[in-house]
Amino acid sequence: MDKSPKVRSLEQLFALVKEGKLDVNEAIEQSKNCYIQDLDFAKIDHHRSLRKGYPEVVFCEGKHIEHATQIIIELAKINGRVLGTRATHELYLRVEAALKGFDVVYHELARVIEVGQPKDQIGHITIVTAGSADIPVAEEAYVTARAMGNHTTKVYDVGVAGLHRLMNHIDEIAKSNVVIVVAGMEGALASVLGGLIDKPLIGVPTAIGYGSHLDGFVPLLAMLNSCATLGVVNIGNGFGAAVLASQINHLVSKKS
Amino acid sequence: MDKSPKVRSLEQLFALVKEGKLDVNEAIEQSKNCYIQDLDFAKIDHHRSLRKGYPEVVFCEGKHIEHATQIIIELAKINGRVLGTRATHELYLRVEAALKGFDVVYHELARVIEVGQPKDQIGHITIVTAGSADIPVAEEAYVTARAMGNHTTKVYDVGVAGLHRLMNHIDEIAKSNVVIVVAGMEGALASVLGGLIDKPLIGVPTAIGYGSHLDGFVPLLAMLNSCATLGVVNIGNGFGAAVLASQINHLVSKKS
Amino acid sequence: MDKSPKVRSLEQLFALVKEGKLDVNEAIEQSKNCYIQDLDFAKIDHHRSLRKGYPEVVFCEGKHIEHATQIIIELAKINGRVLGTRATHELYLRVEAALKGFDVVYHELARVIEVGQPKDQIGHITIVTAGSADIPVAEEAYVTARAMGNHTTKVYDVGVAGLHRLMNHIDEIAKSNVVIVVAGMEGALASVLGGLIDKPLIGVPTAIGYGSHLDGFVPLLAMLNSCATLGVVNIGNGFGAAVLASQINHLVSKKS
Amino acid sequence: MDKSPKVRSLEQLFALVKEGKLDVNEAIEQSKNCYIQDLDFAKIDHHRSLRKGYPEVVFCEGKHIEHATQIIIELAKINGRVLGTRATHELYLRVEAALKGFDVVYHELARVIEVGQPKDQIGHITIVTAGSADIPVAEEAYVTARAMGNHTTKVYDVGVAGLHRLMNHIDEIAKSNVVIVVAGMEGALASVLGGLIDKPLIGVPTAIGYGSHLDGFVPLLAMLNSCATLGVVNIGNGFGAAVLASQINHLVSKKS
Amino acid sequence: MDKSPKVRSLEQLFALVKEGKLDVNEAIEQSKNCYIQDLDFAKIDHHRSLRKGYPEVVFCEGKHIEHATQIIIELAKINGRVLGTRATHELYLRVEAALKGFDVVYHELARVIEVGQPKDQIGHITIVTAGSADIPVAEEAYVTARAMGNHTTKVYDVGVAGLHRLMNHIDEIAKSNVVIVVAGMEGALASVLGGLIDKPLIGVPTAIGYGSHLDGFVPLLAMLNSCATLGVVNIGNGFGAAVLASQINHLVSKKS
Amino acid sequence: MDKSPKVRSLEQLFALVKEGKLDVNEAIEQSKNCYIQDLDFAKIDHHRSLRKGYPEVVFCEGKHIEHATQIIIELAKINGRVLGTRATHELYLRVEAALKGFDVVYHELARVIEVGQPKDQIGHITIVTAGSADIPVAEEAYVTARAMGNHTTKVYDVGVAGLHRLMNHIDEIAKSNVVIVVAGMEGALASVLGGLIDKPLIGVPTAIGYGSHLDGFVPLLAMLNSCATLGVVNIGNGFGAAVLASQINHLVSKKS
Amino acid sequence: MDKSPKVRSLEQLFALVKEGKLDVNEAIEQSKNCYIQDLDFAKIDHHRSLRKGYPEVVFCEGKHIEHATQIIIELAKINGRVLGTRATHELYLRVEAALKGFDVVYHELARVIEVGQPKDQIGHITIVTAGSADIPVAEEAYVTARAMGNHTTKVYDVGVAGLHRLMNHIDEIAKSNVVIVVAGMEGALASVLGGLIDKPLIGVPTAIGYGSHLDGFVPLLAMLNSCATLGVVNIGNGFGAAVLASQINHLVSKKS
Amino acid sequence: MDKSPKVRSLEQLFALVKEGKLDVNEAIEQSKNCYIQDLDFAKIDHHRSLRKGYPEVVFCEGKHIEHATQIIIELAKINGRVLGTRATHELYLRVEAALKGFDVVYHELARVIEVGQPKDQIGHITIVTAGSADIPVAEEAYVTARAMGNHTTKVYDVGVAGLHRLMNHIDEIAKSNVVIVVAGMEGALASVLGGLIDKPLIGVPTAIGYGSHLDGFVPLLAMLNSCATLGVVNIGNGFGAAVLASQINHLVSKKS
Repeated sequence: MDKSPKVRSLEQLFALVKEGKLDVNEAIEQSKNCYIQDLDFAKIDHHRSLRKGYPEVVFCEGKHIEHATQIIIELAKINGRVLGTRATHELYLRVEAALKGFDVVYHELARVIEVGQPKDQIGHITIVTAGSADIPVAEEAYVTARAMGNHTTKVYDVGVAGLHRLMNHIDEIAKSNVVIVVAGMEGALASVLGGLIDKPLIGVPTAIGYGSHLDGFVPLLAMLNSCATLGVVNIGNGFGAAVLASQINHLVSKKS
Repeated sequence: MDKSPKVRSLEQLFALVKEGKLDVNEAIEQSKNCYIQDLDFAKIDHHRSLRKGYPEVVFCEGKHIEHATQIIIELAKINGRVLGTRATHELYLRVEAALKGFDVVYHELARVIEVGQPKDQIGHITIVTAGSADIPVAEEAYVTARAMGNHTTKVYDVGVAGLHRLMNHIDEIAKSNVVIVVAGMEGALASVLGGLIDKPLIGVPTAIGYGSHLDGFVPLLAMLNSCATLGVVNIGNGFGAAVLASQINHLVSKKS
Repeated sequence: MDKSPKVRSLEQLFALVKEGKLDVNEAIEQSKNCYIQDLDFAKIDHHRSLRKGYPEVVFCEGKHIEHATQIIIELAKINGRVLGTRATHELYLRVEAALKGFDVVYHELARVIEVGQPKDQIGHITIVTAGSADIPVAEEAYVTARAMGNHTTKVYDVGVAGLHRLMNHIDEIAKSNVVIVVAGMEGALASVLGGLIDKPLIGVPTAIGYGSHLDGFVPLLAMLNSCATLGVVNIGNGFGAAVLASQINHLVSKKS
Repeated sequence: MDKSPKVRSLEQLFALVKEGKLDVNEAIEQSKNCYIQDLDFAKIDHHRSLRKGYPEVVFCEGKHIEHATQIIIELAKINGRVLGTRATHELYLRVEAALKGFDVVYHELARVIEVGQPKDQIGHITIVTAGSADIPVAEEAYVTARAMGNHTTKVYDVGVAGLHRLMNHIDEIAKSNVVIVVAGMEGALASVLGGLIDKPLIGVPTAIGYGSHLDGFVPLLAMLNSCATLGVVNIGNGFGAAVLASQINHLVSKKS
Repeated sequence: MDKSPKVRSLEQLFALVKEGKLDVNEAIEQSKNCYIQDLDFAKIDHHRSLRKGYPEVVFCEGKHIEHATQIIIELAKINGRVLGTRATHELYLRVEAALKGFDVVYHELARVIEVGQPKDQIGHITIVTAGSADIPVAEEAYVTARAMGNHTTKVYDVGVAGLHRLMNHIDEIAKSNVVIVVAGMEGALASVLGGLIDKPLIGVPTAIGYGSHLDGFVPLLAMLNSCATLGVVNIGNGFGAAVLASQINHLVSKKS
Repeated sequence: MDKSPKVRSLEQLFALVKEGKLDVNEAIEQSKNCYIQDLDFAKIDHHRSLRKGYPEVVFCEGKHIEHATQIIIELAKINGRVLGTRATHELYLRVEAALKGFDVVYHELARVIEVGQPKDQIGHITIVTAGSADIPVAEEAYVTARAMGNHTTKVYDVGVAGLHRLMNHIDEIAKSNVVIVVAGMEGALASVLGGLIDKPLIGVPTAIGYGSHLDGFVPLLAMLNSCATLGVVNIGNGFGAAVLASQINHLVSKKS
Repeated sequence: MDKSPKVRSLEQLFALVKEGKLDVNEAIEQSKNCYIQDLDFAKIDHHRSLRKGYPEVVFCEGKHIEHATQIIIELAKINGRVLGTRATHELYLRVEAALKGFDVVYHELARVIEVGQPKDQIGHITIVTAGSADIPVAEEAYVTARAMGNHTTKVYDVGVAGLHRLMNHIDEIAKSNVVIVVAGMEGALASVLGGLIDKPLIGVPTAIGYGSHLDGFVPLLAMLNSCATLGVVNIGNGFGAAVLASQINHLVSKKS
Repeated sequence: MDKSPKVRSLEQLFALVKEGKLDVNEAIEQSKNCYIQDLDFAKIDHHRSLRKGYPEVVFCEGKHIEHATQIIIELAKINGRVLGTRATHELYLRVEAALKGFDVVYHELARVIEVGQPKDQIGHITIVTAGSADIPVAEEAYVTARAMGNHTTKVYDVGVAGLHRLMNHIDEIAKSNVVIVVAGMEGALASVLGGLIDKPLIGVPTAIGYGSHLDGFVPLLAMLNSCATLGVVNIGNGFGAAVLASQINHLVSKKS
């Protein structure tokens, strides 16, 4: 009877039972850990990632670095694939050192740690930015969308100050299933795009600007009050935009 | 040669030319009006509704009542189907009097004037509210979604103060292609729903509450800062939520 | 010796002295009234309007109706031409009744009382609006600009939701000396216009919108944070935009 | 006659008088210092802690480090037990060095210096957090509540994104006399908890979040506008929540 | 077999079964209505009030008057006792007309409709106001607390502008189990009271003031930032303060 | 033995005792009412006005009209002189009807009810306004200052748009002991005045303006951030400015 | 003929002329520098300090350190006495090094550089703080008031959490001509003080607090909305409070 | 056939074709790069600067330093003249090292990198500041205006605290075609200037102040609510003010 590592996936448990290495009662007891693993400072929910098939995501900002490290490691052990967003390079080094044998990458501009390989990519999401300072947020969306199995393309720096830059790309943008628009300052690109295409549009305001830009509240409010129709996510929330886009893209692509 | 009514649809123009009732040059001249009709106080864009197949929508609030009346009438004449949102009963009476022979309905709770019959309804959108005071906004979404050809169901008054009310309906909600959640006060229903279902979720904050509710900014900010993933629209913007939901629902339903 | 009406223009005083109807000391005494006339509740400055050649303007909102009436009357008596902005129809009726023999017009949409005829109109100002609900503010600008002697044209309802509506008019707009852009909601028209033309652009945000529009603060902040260059005036301040545009237009037109 | 250390507790004074080491007039004179000790930059109130039986608390943030050190030392000398909240490690080192013979502990996550042993613990308070980034605030509450003689348990990281994590613990939470809920982002956990239990609930919003989280104002306002009933304390005020919970818990526990 | 009124309490169902007037299967079917009664626009939760023993409360503001009327009537039929807060006199008249045979009272200052008699009153809650303009909010708290079975006393108009007014009553206030302090303007009474008594204190800010009072946000923020310890509820939320006070008071009183 | 009217001034009580109409114990009992008279909804403090020699002031806004009426009447009976600020004309009619034999005046622009004659006026306060719309606030200050025994003069409508209007009066303003400056819009008059005179300056921002004026917060913040030195009171608080000015003016004038 | 140092006081110029060391035309030319000395980056106004008799003050924060140094030096050379507020220690070292022969002191807590000796001190100002963290602002007020020739006393750490601490000092506070109250958090001390004394009261809010304290806006707004009467200055503006207090104190003291 | 550097100006292409060094098809292919050069992270628009004749400007803040460097270099190669605003000294060093043979200057106070020589300067713009802490913003405006070919003068430190400083320069200011006023704190200088001159006035609020200055929102709002007429740009946006002023100045100067 194997006793030691208590936290296993259901698959592992069934295999052990089948192989006679674990008795049924013990398996049932351990199965509780499959779903929620109590680390005292965190209650990790393995069920979610198992069910959905894409990697569990850890929002690292604000978490004690040791807590963040341990959560990522536990998730990686069970699920194989994890994303750590808003992650510092220092956290990456800790995770990378601990997860020998895993594929661990740090996307610097996006500030994302990626453990494991992205899924096969289906459908089509386009990520558009108004300026080049919006790129870090766009990259967080890009890395997340790709990791969740979406075919994703980028059109950066096509803000309304020079409309012809946008017009050069409008046809390819219009072919995507979903469009993510990332913009700071006054966020006018979202309104213009919304008037030109007829696909679901997700707006991500960024804290880019100066003076009275209110740390991104100006494009946030502009997008919410847009004459165009779009779903808005939090300032700088490239991750959230990618998850929503992925839900839509998968729904569309799986149906077809 | 017919001379009088200048504003016709392209279909009408082609028909007249074919029938020899209109010469080609005159048809080309009139075709400019097909797209943008200049009423001096408004530039009506007929192209949009023709292309998209669903009714053109007039946001009536803030417009001079005579302007609103005239815009709705012109759109109805060309497109047959129009929605007038944020419309007073008085405006409805004017429109109804002017559009003899048209099907004109006033949805009182939703404050929407509907000219013409809704399209065939496909797919599935669910509209959920936290309380009964959120119903007017939810009804605006409902009337809009239905008019744009979406099969739409309602689950009202299932806020988190009594979680079991929500749990009774969670399975049917989870089956929709898109879910619209309408909530005021602290908007917690959006977060709870987002943790329970895995479909695209659109949040509509409402200005329901008292004291420090900031006219709906509290649920707006709560939804934007939610631990769940959702696309947020403006406070009370049931219309916008319905359009976004319709884009997604049609994309999914057409593909299948 | 004429004694009675103490408030005369300097021109009138010199004429009376020349004609021997007023002695020099009395003229000097009365000349003090030419500049600042103390009505107890208001100190009217006649000098300003005499010097500038265009009508003195009374901001009527917030003033006691009797005070506003009296100030307009006193200004009309000396200068012949007055504008009363933010004026109610009731105030117009009082002024109109009191100023027999004067040309008194009430511009209803603009809420402006105009006493006297506009000056000859030179140069070129264009006033552009995003929607038809922005028209009252645009009309305040239009009446003011015309009264101050500017050739002024209007292009209404060309917001970015339908870019082609704007594109149809962009060439004529670009020919003006100054452009005033009036927009509510997210104010994106200002940014788009600023990217397309190279003339001084004045932005007037309006309190048009709903939900989180913050009574016009959203387009105000959007214009201030625009990627384009424009000078912004207060929310709904059509009057101020017209005065600034008039200063520029006159400077340009007089030089030529 | 003892002359030297002027600041003594009333108990010490009575003992000295009884032992004949202090005459009555001198004791009366010194007794004034028992209550309020004037350090020039601070007026320490010893009466409060003596009367209540639990340690006096010094809010250290913003105080000059020498002032904070001296206040803690003076309180410790008279009362034996002191808490220093929002304390740096540097302050701890100074206090620890000065208070030889005292039990001085630094609770790092909670940023609290504790001098002396906690009282006997009665009743039951539970502290619940939504995420693991809320732990520092929860720990401040935990250390304070325990120091004030309350039996206190912790349930961390049970936010509404995964409702089943909360449900696993809801029965034990419901048995407490008072519940403290610590949550950032949109603070929805407070509303959900309030709908599930019927004990006094104290909400502590935290400044955890990003984008438009307004440094904790979002969960603060969400809690104040909750459909559930709770008493809210300042953002991050774990200490205040613990004091209020302790007042309730002691009232309940003493009565029983 | 009785068929007609479907909505009965569990007690009624059991009685009917016992008396042989209802068969078991029918009783089980009907029992679903005991808990949640679906009125389409509202899902009434009867379980809550049955379990807790005190009246169910309907927040009437924002609800359509017909909806509010019907919800109160349904609750009254099952539970006998209902509170309708933020109720207009017109709503009272409708409810009173519909509920013949019930005890229906309208508390005008408090704007509360009370159906049925208050429970026996135990323990002790004191409600204190700073000024006489705070009385409506205090009365909402008073009517609620009394209806929920709390012995409740009032001390009105003892703000800090005249400290001796407060001092005259401080001893009686200090004897309560819980104290509710209702204050507008700068809310300083909460801080002063918190320094003088050692019982759980609940602060209710009111929207009383002028100029920069921000509709009650000033006393709200002042209470949250108070040097004293108190649990704060929403601006004007007399009802919420009473419920929280009642939870504490019952916990204390039942234990004794 | 006189029994009936319990509320008398200390002077009246001593006189009655001296005349043998009241025994000593009864007088002591009644003397408690001299200071604080408990009307249930209000605790009137007679001591304050007796001690200070100027009229007690009742802030009427927000108070129930019957409460306000009764408070003014009780104060008038004991003190002879009362001010009711923020009073409606309807309240005036009630007070005037009830106080036969008293001198009751309603200052309409100032919205102040004055009972009794102003004190002798000493020293010198000047009240300056930027525009004529600021007059109601200035008049509240004027009536209050005069009633409290200050020689008070007015200089209205001298805002910085026409600096020469201010310059005409600067010498007389500079001679006052205190200057109250009342200004809305951007409040620049306060800064300019502060640079020109060297007397204590009290700023009263008003809610005059439009667009982004934030109900008076703009001049409030401008005055607080002024490069000049002034003490600022709440928006529209003409009364408070007059009390502060009166304290200074009396201090100066009594010393001389 | 003396040629070299162009910037002299009028007194110096007259002396030189009298002594025959400077001819009249040259003196007139140089006299222009007496008043406004143009340093390119600053226009120093010597007239102000000469006229008023107390030291000129330089607000150093935000100024380039070389600019600040040079301005202080130029003022010191002409006037002998200067205050530099919000000054760093580094600036002090530069000034001290440049002004050999001058009395240069750095008040560290107050962050003020003082050049020259304070004037004789007359009258009486008291500075009161709520807590010990408010001391830096209070010290800025203290140094400024003393330098401007006011007898100034301090009462620190007497906030309302322990009212008896304040009561111990209330009689001495009440004897001053003016009282400055410095308070952060909820600023309740200002209201309590205002109810207890009858002297002009100046409130200085401080940015002391945590959580929702809004960098001092909470006590600022609380003071502006106080039920007591006080003149409020900007957050942390100890200097401004002292200047206003000095104006009042000198007016009172000189008259006596 | 020359093949290598693909990015050339149209002028260069025509020259090469003329000289037979480039064939026509290749020239057409390369001409696409003349307008928009795609650097992946940025789409550089060369057309704009070529058409307008003044240097292209790169807003460097927020851009990755390598991106900023590369964009400036590419623009310099084609246009010869570039401005990099909000540039660090480190960026300057990179640019300077890469652009050998170019004239590269770093304006430190203005934080502007200037590549190439300013154009010939025509017309007249005056830049006025209230204080010396406003100079960095003013210098950004100055460097920009000069680079764009405007004759530009400066009048610094003439705020309203000492009106005579402004009056000494008012005549020279009034002679400009456009005036830029740069002011922090309460921004009153803009209002005073607007009352004294009759030329187009552009206001630039700065984030200079302390306490409640809201990072420049106070002067921003003050300018927008000014009784004078001015066009306002974003807080600290010296660059934008200069571009707008340049547009006006060139329009005026070219016409003459």
